[in-house]
Amino acid sequence: MIKDMTQDEISLYIIKTLKENKKAEFEIIVDELQPYDLAKIYQDLPFKHKARFLLFLNPDILADLMEELDKEEQLDLLNMLGVEKSSNVLNLMDNDDLASLLDELSPEKKDSLLSEMNKMESNAVQDIMKYPPETAGRIMTNRFVWIRNYYTVREAVDKLKSFAEFAESLNYLYVIDGARRLVGVVSYRDLLLADPGEKIDDIMYERVIYVTVTTDQEVVAKTVERYDFISVPVVDEAHILVGIITVDDVIDVVIKEANEDIEKLSASGKSIDFETKTLVAAARRLPWLILLLFIGLISGRIISGFEETLQKVVALAFFMPMIAGMTGNTGTQSLAVVVRGLISHDIDKKVVFRLVMREFGVGVSIGVTCAVLISVIAYIWQGNFILGMVVGCSLFFTLIIGTLAGTVIPLILYKLKIDPAVASGPLITTLNDIFSLLTYFGIATMFIQYLM
Amino acid sequence: MIKDMTQDEISLYIIKTLKENKKAEFEIIVDELQPYDLAKIYQDLPFKHKARFLLFLNPDILADLMEELDKEEQLDLLNMLGVEKSSNVLNLMDNDDLASLLDELSPEKKDSLLSEMNKMESNAVQDIMKYPPETAGRIMTNRFVWIRNYYTVREAVDKLKSFAEFAESLNYLYVIDGARRLVGVVSYRDLLLADPGEKIDDIMYERVIYVTVTTDQEVVAKTVERYDFISVPVVDEAHILVGIITVDDVIDVVIKEANEDIEKLSASGKSIDFETKTLVAAARRLPWLILLLFIGLISGRIISGFEETLQKVVALAFFMPMIAGMTGNTGTQSLAVVVRGLISHDIDKKVVFRLVMREFGVGVSIGVTCAVLISVIAYIWQGNFILGMVVGCSLFFTLIIGTLAGTVIPLILYKLKIDPAVASGPLITTLNDIFSLLTYFGIATMFIQYLM
Repeated sequence: MIKDMTQDEISLYIIKTLKENKKAEFEIIVDELQPYDLAKIYQDLPFKHKARFLLFLNPDILADLMEELDKEEQLDLLNMLGVEKSSNVLNLMDNDDLASLLDELSPEKKDSLLSEMNKMESNAVQDIMKYPPETAGRIMTNRFVWIRNYYTVREAVDKLKSFAEFAESLNYLYVIDGARRLVGVVSYRDLLLADPGEKIDDIMYERVIYVTVTTDQEVVAKTVERYDFISVPVVDEAHILVGIITVDDVIDVVIKEANEDIEKLSASGKSIDFETKTLVAAARRLPWLILLLFIGLISGRIISGFEETLQKVVALAFFMPMIAGMTGNTGTQSLAVVVRGLISHDIDKKVVFRLVMREFGVGVSIGVTCAVLISVIAYIWQGNFILGMVVGCSLFFTLIIGTLAGTVIPLILYKLKIDPAVASGPLITTLNDIFSLLTYFGIATMFIQYLM
Repeated sequence: MIKDMTQDEISLYIIKTLKENKKAEFEIIVDELQPYDLAKIYQDLPFKHKARFLLFLNPDILADLMEELDKEEQLDLLNMLGVEKSSNVLNLMDNDDLASLLDELSPEKKDSLLSEMNKMESNAVQDIMKYPPETAGRIMTNRFVWIRNYYTVREAVDKLKSFAEFAESLNYLYVIDGARRLVGVVSYRDLLLADPGEKIDDIMYERVIYVTVTTDQEVVAKTVERYDFISVPVVDEAHILVGIITVDDVIDVVIKEANEDIEKLSASGKSIDFETKTLVAAARRLPWLILLLFIGLISGRIISGFEETLQKVVALAFFMPMIAGMTGNTGTQSLAVVVRGLISHDIDKKVVFRLVMREFGVGVSIGVTCAVLISVIAYIWQGNFILGMVVGCSLFFTLIIGTLAGTVIPLILYKLKIDPAVASGPLITTLNDIFSLLTYFGIATMFIQYLM
């Protein structure tokens, strides 16, 4: 009925059914909507209609809706629902989504929500929350259908049918043995194609790719991406199947990790988005800036050490920003290549050696080109051949140093098991300022008698 | 049999079967391997064994293997296979993978490969290649099973069984009418749960979310991510179903787009990875660097305009790198927040106004803190109160300017439909150098009589 309506038309239609208190008609519309669309409509709904909107939805759909909202909206919704209905909704939510909601609440609020829930679900979500953040254990769901290896295909299909409403994703069925250990996997397709009398043991695929509860979520994402899976099973240390991770959660991980890399590379501060409040955003960015301020003063200290040189040839100051800037820029370029490369590559000595040599070569090529260019420009501008040579030589060396710093520093951090993206662009830029000023004024001081 | 073996043990075992020419044993092992693992083994295999390895594989598995390799490896493999077998393999490859292989070849090489293929497959891949790059048409596959709306569930399952080997992904079945227009979708689960006699028309879900052939791949990724789909159907302008896009391709798109953002933000040059040759990498980075070199000279020109001021108070030079650096750093921070935010937000005037005001507030907060800090430090270091005030005031203003430049420039580019990530970190940094030097020397010149 609403098949060809736009989002706005549907919204208006829903408001009409709410105003006229037509629950049956309302339910027919809602039944046709995807959770994401329903959440959009709910978010844009005038406040006065929200209470009845929630009243009209059953707990199943409310749980789907919850999973599309952000934390604040989720809490508002629970408050509006009241204790009894909200406990029903919490029971029905996916464990991983529920865990990430509870994670950000105060201990009191968390306990009060947990106490509303039924024992089994509340234990399950508390089990998940024991795993360290950003591990497979944290993003897995326990809503999946498992089958035993001694089932027949018919028994498996029957179990599937009876749990169809319960399970999040039913594309593969993971097979466990008597001790609940993961022993195989069967796809929907396999079940459809098999003879109903066949044993699961005979049709299942035994070399199951899995992750463990403590596997880092980035590794989980890499696994799913490499194997093109729709879900991946999670086992504990005894190889017992405890959950699955679905591809939709993996996409979220990939996006989150990419954002984190960009945040770190630009030192832009942890999770600042369009909604972050001014003072919070300022507070998150300040620590880096203050650190960089002090490192920047080291550059000042270096220049003051060359005060005499500078006083003799003030023109040296004209090229300072260009040399420092260029060195910083090449450093940032190398850094970005290395940080992103580390994500998709397995690193060994050979790879590192080749990469460092490549970047050295890049530094030399870029250095020669830019040095020749700037020598000519400086000579023409200042009419001093030696000054041109000093600026050119300095740029040549600083570009090589900048490229190598941008390559080697993240690699060393990686080796020390520190996230290489911590060596952010601003940090590399500021360090390269120091290197370039030392080189520039060092060379200038050597030739000072010819410069005057 | 190989269930509990490590990758290395499997490799050795495979080499053994190749040496002893045991094809049957070889096939049993290969049958248990995922395409990704098979590709890893192939890549690490000593060259002398590769020919027989390929000889032992059937075209189906070779096609799977091809899809895991990069372009150069794919071409090597095709050369080793010879014309007849390689045409078989090309016929069996997914259209989207084949299109991206052909895309990077010379026209002659492309035509020669296409002419080897059978007419139907070659036409299909050429159809895909007509769509603009980075659109849904380019990443869709035509290997999917569709059903008619007038089928019964039994007929649908029968069709599914007969095409099971052919179709890439069988999680949803898209339903078309007599004119091949997309009219519904049925999941595996629906088929399993339905009565065999029911009509597809009665059980299908009609409000199908779809994309069109010209939809940008980023929008496709956003759609799949929002709705948590495993695949999304692609229709042409007449609403005829022409392909599907699977979630594994969507993950690749998400990773590629994130890498592109990082490349642009750091101006690190288009698609430079660990394998890129030195001169290619240097050539890709040089254009940006040369542009930045000239912009850097503008900074030099500004300083030379203030030569007199600088000659009178050389100590002013000590704080130049710090002020320029800090301004650049705040700019980069704001830039990263805006660029990533633009990806996930729908932008209107209200959002822009709020964001600019927020960043202005951040600039003021950061400015006050850092300005007070540096005034005190400069006073203590140089023993000149006015110098401390000049440096502090300058930093206050330049930090606000830097923050706003990092916010407003990408927003303007976005408004002008230019990719905002083009306003890379290095560009913002270099522009902010100019702003900060003008501010700093401007203020210093105003107070020059008190500074001396």
